[in-house]
Amino acid sequence: MHQFTRMLLTEWRRLGLPFSGENVMIAVSGGADSIGLALAIGQLVKLNKFGNRFTIAHFNHRLRGEQSDEDEAFVLEFAHKHGFCASNSFSDRTERKKSNLEEYARRERYDFLERAAGLTGASIIMTAHTMDDQAETFLLRMLRGSGVEGLGAMSPSREFFAGCRLVRPLLNWAYRKDTERFCRDHRIKFRVDEMNEDERFARVKVRKQLLPNLKEFNPKIVETLCQTAATLRADAEMLSVAAKGRYEELRNADGTLSQKALLEVPEILRSRLVRQWLSEAFPGLRQIGSTHIRAVESLALSPKSGRQAELPGGISVLKKGGKLLIRKTKG
Amino acid sequence: MHQFTRMLLTEWRRLGLPFSGENVMIAVSGGADSIGLALAIGQLVKLNKFGNRFTIAHFNHRLRGEQSDEDEAFVLEFAHKHGFCASNSFSDRTERKKSNLEEYARRERYDFLERAAGLTGASIIMTAHTMDDQAETFLLRMLRGSGVEGLGAMSPSREFFAGCRLVRPLLNWAYRKDTERFCRDHRIKFRVDEMNEDERFARVKVRKQLLPNLKEFNPKIVETLCQTAATLRADAEMLSVAAKGRYEELRNADGTLSQKALLEVPEILRSRLVRQWLSEAFPGLRQIGSTHIRAVESLALSPKSGRQAELPGGISVLKKGGKLLIRKTKG
Repeated sequence: MHQFTRMLLTEWRRLGLPFSGENVMIAVSGGADSIGLALAIGQLVKLNKFGNRFTIAHFNHRLRGEQSDEDEAFVLEFAHKHGFCASNSFSDRTERKKSNLEEYARRERYDFLERAAGLTGASIIMTAHTMDDQAETFLLRMLRGSGVEGLGAMSPSREFFAGCRLVRPLLNWAYRKDTERFCRDHRIKFRVDEMNEDERFARVKVRKQLLPNLKEFNPKIVETLCQTAATLRADAEMLSVAAKGRYEELRNADGTLSQKALLEVPEILRSRLVRQWLSEAFPGLRQIGSTHIRAVESLALSPKSGRQAELPGGISVLKKGGKLLIRKTKG
Repeated sequence: MHQFTRMLLTEWRRLGLPFSGENVMIAVSGGADSIGLALAIGQLVKLNKFGNRFTIAHFNHRLRGEQSDEDEAFVLEFAHKHGFCASNSFSDRTERKKSNLEEYARRERYDFLERAAGLTGASIIMTAHTMDDQAETFLLRMLRGSGVEGLGAMSPSREFFAGCRLVRPLLNWAYRKDTERFCRDHRIKFRVDEMNEDERFARVKVRKQLLPNLKEFNPKIVETLCQTAATLRADAEMLSVAAKGRYEELRNADGTLSQKALLEVPEILRSRLVRQWLSEAFPGLRQIGSTHIRAVESLALSPKSGRQAELPGGISVLKKGGKLLIRKTKG
């Protein structure tokens, strides 16, 4: 068994993932990471390690014309050849916001995965994020001013929606070069997305400019940042447990927050409670940073009434009659 | 009143610092930051804002020959001219470890400040660290793999030793360029340390190479990182409160930790308890990173007895008879 496949099996056990009876969906773009993951799973299926049903899911973003269609055909052929079921879809939006293409594409893809998982009854969706992706995510969030939750970056296993988990079985141990080597060792082709070279994307710029700079200080920076993210994730979890009790007391039955109660909370807990409140109202909202949390806190602190704080995604927080309430203005 | 002086006064109130009756020691290297701080305090003294007694403390590291002696003379003259008491000393070590010069010099300086504060009965020692220093500290710790405590970077006010606080009244609001402008606006000269240009020092390299790179992603990166550090510091404080209760139960009266009890603690708390234990034994020890904490955890997890984990500063942690104990081997 190839070292890569063995490592995947070890991680599968470590994460307590099921060996049979479940529908598992693998998100495959056609790149080395996701093809490597699917290939290793295919090998384990052939070795009778798994009694699960695996489906490969591919979303065609149609951002690169023929190239995108070729990716799709490539993934479908790969699935067919390696005995996987396949589920695919494509973006039908004509209007595209150029401003935040990465975030928009991510959301479209995750919406598709949610639909597809629902249709096939998948209890697990797998993505092939590697340690390199994790370090990049940490840095992108650091640049944006994220707190401990954001700096915790991606979790190797979290709830995606009720009854379905999002699992990243490469996140804890695989580098991008490992997936490439694994594919090459099996003479399996993979697709190369030229957008991964386009430095207008912040993530690409982090990969091409910032990480090489950081490596001059610490050659093991990717490993270091992954460790840091894991530690901070555990810290965030513990803080969330501590804050949860207080939050239940503070939140009114109508979903508003009492201004007075919020002011009585120790400062150290306040921002955490505001974050909890906002993330409960908008679970998918990732652009909320510490600036926005502080804006809501200032709103609560201000004696004047009738003011509001603007958040991303067309959301405002209003102060009215001693209560903070959320209003969605568009989208 | 100059904007800089007014900002200092505002921060003085915000931090709840005393306006009279206390001995306050200002650590002055002769650079723009510390000369700026002392100058602003001198102005406030002249305006009768303060009834404290202020002493300027200078430590001559003797690292740059005549230059160092000129710095010392410059600071003493500045103190005399602006009506401050002065306290100075110098490094008398002949043997110098080249390997970690910054850390060594820092410790020598802090030892001097502690002695000087003790002699003058100072209840506050002030250093002139700015937001730029804070961002650099955050990045240095990130590069080293620090967790939430380390990434919290410097505190604007913390206990230095019993009865004496270390206060950084510029940390929350002043940039390095503000202190330089403040000095220039008053035609007050300051010393320029050529070691601040020497990129063999990690901090200088962070300032000269890494921060300019990060500014390409986020022009307000210094502000952003300072905010992040402040948030993480508050989180660390909350986590420490949560861990404290458990720690008291775990720690034996003889200062050892019970291996069995440590294994029963949730994983999420374990590293925090180990860190607490080590930092209690060696309050000044700053080089302990997550690698060392993990080494001690592995030691506790390992069923074999008689093993040990090596920590920096000539410290080992030994496992003996179901207990972890600390041994200092040198220094």
